[in-house]
Amino acid sequence: MDLLLYQRADCPFCLKLKVGLLELGLEHETVNTVLGEKHPDVLKLNPRGTVPVLVDRDLVIPESAVALEYVNDHAGGPLFGQSPQERARIRLTAHYSDGAVGAALRDIIFEKRAKPEADWDRARIADGMARWRAVLDQLEDWCGAQGFGGDSFTAADCALMARFALADAYGAGVTPDHPRLYGWYGRERDRPSVRAAFPRRLPMAGGTMEIKR
Amino acid sequence: MDLLLYQRADCPFCLKLKVGLLELGLEHETVNTVLGEKHPDVLKLNPRGTVPVLVDRDLVIPESAVALEYVNDHAGGPLFGQSPQERARIRLTAHYSDGAVGAALRDIIFEKRAKPEADWDRARIADGMARWRAVLDQLEDWCGAQGFGGDSFTAADCALMARFALADAYGAGVTPDHPRLYGWYGRERDRPSVRAAFPRRLPMAGGTMEIKR
Repeated sequence: MDLLLYQRADCPFCLKLKVGLLELGLEHETVNTVLGEKHPDVLKLNPRGTVPVLVDRDLVIPESAVALEYVNDHAGGPLFGQSPQERARIRLTAHYSDGAVGAALRDIIFEKRAKPEADWDRARIADGMARWRAVLDQLEDWCGAQGFGGDSFTAADCALMARFALADAYGAGVTPDHPRLYGWYGRERDRPSVRAAFPRRLPMAGGTMEIKR
Repeated sequence: MDLLLYQRADCPFCLKLKVGLLELGLEHETVNTVLGEKHPDVLKLNPRGTVPVLVDRDLVIPESAVALEYVNDHAGGPLFGQSPQERARIRLTAHYSDGAVGAALRDIIFEKRAKPEADWDRARIADGMARWRAVLDQLEDWCGAQGFGGDSFTAADCALMARFALADAYGAGVTPDHPRLYGWYGRERDRPSVRAAFPRRLPMAGGTMEIKR
């Protein structure tokens, strides 16, 4: 493999893939792009201009879920479990993270990132927080039994750690009200792959905010 | 395996999975649901109420892409190719079928299905047809080289055959202007799995239409 990753460190799909690459110990070159700009090299590879885009010689993968399967597959990695049942559960939870979890957090993060605090639409943020709590209730049920939060770190863990670390940074954390999730997040947030992938600064209205770890 | 499939025969995601199950020769029980109704058993398994839902004992899979991977995985089937590169290309095209191809066809099919012909919103249908042609241009480039239209029938072929057969029935066919696609569709539409999966009648405003094959 000769891996080249176009990414933005504040993008949850990129962060998921970056954590996966680090878990697998796969060497790769990284090109960082910036929120709000369509990188010209990315546009040539992916007309939508979105990241991540993973390139391995003539193979261009502009979908994070497919890219994570590809690198795990190539490395013979453990991220998608062993049995067909395990793989199905991991994929279902990773899909839930990419879809429902992302949708719940979008209103909170986009609002806080786009405007100074005085201008935040508080109702929009409250709506997002209500959906985030519903997601936490669902994930609390699944933790340890639906492809993440168990003994081995999976593609679903990669996906959800990316979401939870970003959520936490933007003020939507997890509390002991969700004890299994709280334990899982506390345990995995200091994992080397997560620490190495997570940026030190994140975009906030008018600039960036520093992430304290 | 002890497979139970909840589906609607006019749903492209269900049809994709059904074609896959038939390709793999996997025995399964089918429960047919009806457009516009949320089946009570489906609601218990999947709170969104959407189909397909594939059940194998205690494993519930309410996502068609995950379900197709599961059955292929369990059967050791050929639908996702052999090498990591092949699998990535098949997954990318299947993802494109589930997303962009579906979005292009939605306006055409929903409009024709919902209203008598005299009331169709012709502008909405024309917009859909323009997007459908753009999708055909993209797929023409990919045919034979991006996980479908080659020597072996893949998960991407399952996904796209479901879309193309439905598109054709609702008046959005493929013509010799897209010669590779036209050849592929003409060849594969009479495949036993596709013939067996495709319904004889499809919903149309005020009732159903008969499908002539």
